[in-house]
Amino acid sequence: MTKAYDSIRPIRWENDQLVLMDQRLLPQQETLLRYSDIASVAKAITDMVVRGAPAIGVTAAYGIVLAARDQYARSPESWQANIKNDLESLAAARPTAVNLFWAIKHMSKCIEVVSGDPYDALLQEAHAILQEDIEANYKMGELGASLLTDKSKVITHCNAGALATGGYGTALGVIRAAHEQGKIQQVFADETRPWLQGVRLTAWELQKEGIPVTVLAEGAAAMLMRQEKLAWVIVGSDRIAANGDVANKIGTYSLAVNAKRHGVKVMVVAPTSTIDMEMACGDDIPIEFRSENELLSLAGQNMAPENVHAWNPVFDVTPAELVDAIVTERGIVHKPNAAKISGLMSS
Amino acid sequence: MTKAYDSIRPIRWENDQLVLMDQRLLPQQETLLRYSDIASVAKAITDMVVRGAPAIGVTAAYGIVLAARDQYARSPESWQANIKNDLESLAAARPTAVNLFWAIKHMSKCIEVVSGDPYDALLQEAHAILQEDIEANYKMGELGASLLTDKSKVITHCNAGALATGGYGTALGVIRAAHEQGKIQQVFADETRPWLQGVRLTAWELQKEGIPVTVLAEGAAAMLMRQEKLAWVIVGSDRIAANGDVANKIGTYSLAVNAKRHGVKVMVVAPTSTIDMEMACGDDIPIEFRSENELLSLAGQNMAPENVHAWNPVFDVTPAELVDAIVTERGIVHKPNAAKISGLMSS
Repeated sequence: MTKAYDSIRPIRWENDQLVLMDQRLLPQQETLLRYSDIASVAKAITDMVVRGAPAIGVTAAYGIVLAARDQYARSPESWQANIKNDLESLAAARPTAVNLFWAIKHMSKCIEVVSGDPYDALLQEAHAILQEDIEANYKMGELGASLLTDKSKVITHCNAGALATGGYGTALGVIRAAHEQGKIQQVFADETRPWLQGVRLTAWELQKEGIPVTVLAEGAAAMLMRQEKLAWVIVGSDRIAANGDVANKIGTYSLAVNAKRHGVKVMVVAPTSTIDMEMACGDDIPIEFRSENELLSLAGQNMAPENVHAWNPVFDVTPAELVDAIVTERGIVHKPNAAKISGLMSS
Repeated sequence: MTKAYDSIRPIRWENDQLVLMDQRLLPQQETLLRYSDIASVAKAITDMVVRGAPAIGVTAAYGIVLAARDQYARSPESWQANIKNDLESLAAARPTAVNLFWAIKHMSKCIEVVSGDPYDALLQEAHAILQEDIEANYKMGELGASLLTDKSKVITHCNAGALATGGYGTALGVIRAAHEQGKIQQVFADETRPWLQGVRLTAWELQKEGIPVTVLAEGAAAMLMRQEKLAWVIVGSDRIAANGDVANKIGTYSLAVNAKRHGVKVMVVAPTSTIDMEMACGDDIPIEFRSENELLSLAGQNMAPENVHAWNPVFDVTPAELVDAIVTERGIVHKPNAAKISGLMSS
């Protein structure tokens, strides 16, 4: 089912190793890094070699395969107990994307039931998570694209593309599908401070496939909405609460507030593994703060005066009232609320 | 009347030369550049050696002194005709800040009436413009600070400080005065992409004086407003239309939209030389677009894939309806509209 043009696969399994495309170096360098142990995989997640909620989930699943292999080799009798520390360390890698915890929980169930050498069974499970993620993205792409009526101008924030998932992408999956259907006139991509996912990753993905993309500072998005008729804001999510509140890359909330003012609709594209029914609302979602240095220095050069502090939350919460549609692989939730999300999750 | 702690003077006249602090290099380097001819001064404005609407106006006035000296030396008879080309080139240096055109108009009147060697008379006029700008900032500082009732948290965007003016600043003048009165708990400063005026210049100015400042990505301002009780957005302006619409650094409009949603008031601090009665509304104000490269590269390093385009307007317009107060040296206009602005300007 792979599309001809759809070739970006940030996470691969080759020669019994996990292979990640180093997203810190894109688009200047396309470097692959190889991982053979869980501690290095957890560090790769923390350090953002790989990022994007679904991609973190898939990576974690493969990381657990590596952990199981090591623990089983060390002690075939007690590996299932011994791996628990590994899973806890992995869970501490990043706090906001729920897909990490979803993958750990999912793989833990397999660990409980597997007997003998767990390698093949867990690897098969990780492959299935990856494949299901890609299939979910194709499905969401079709569903989301159906919401675009005319040839449209849209804006996206951060990178919710192939690089943020197993492949194809969530928000960018919708944009890819819509582009294929001739429904994309122009994509605007917020540069996305401080990590520049928009200018580095989203622009790279879209340009590779000839989808017209223009980047802008996120501060310019409000002016853009005043000047241009944008049809949709299309973004991914790192965690969706049971009431439809959406945690996503810092700046999404501001974009949604401005969209509301300008009559631009907001589409959130995320697999159901991103929905966390244990979070009643967005305020419950743990928000990651990262190093001040991400804001205070650029390309290794200090920008700020010494001893100045920065406030660097890397996610924010967009309340459900500002969201017009949540697109999942199970269907679209229009004007999300607790009842509709509950209905979707039990469907 | 200079305050003890108020020592940043970005524009000076020394040894018959104009001296500018190179704002492209701050805060890492405090470099002074010397100018002896109008063409170099115009280029300094274009290249943002000096920036900030009032500072551009003052710089232009001194640049005209240099032009008059040269043209008079070349032809004492026809210098007043010959200087017109210089003034046109100067006017083309940057389009949005009206203070540039205000200064040219003001100095042109002096050029018309001066007889004999114009140097002393024009230099005196430029000195007066600089001094009046600083005095206006002190006055606006007092007026604006009076709007803060309690010890407050405030947010500012870009740099409307001493560096953006003759000294003391407009928005930062208010913050300085309020701080002196014990009314500032915390200043938040948007980093201000793409030129990073917030993290480079505003943080530098405030830290020098011990005013607590924390920088953040502008995409984070909406989340900040949700979490913290901010009293005011305090910003400067590059041009204010007759109806109270405010052109200011890109990102100001987004900040004001978010302020409205969160019940945070918006204060615009600008001398009356920033008000352009020939612009009926904000849509009439020419908005400068700068090089795509300002967004696509960082610290000389290319961030984006090749051939990707950027949309880089460096100002936007905040409609008067989102502005709670315009603070000028002649007084405060609450909830600005055409009638109130007209009243202020004829006062």
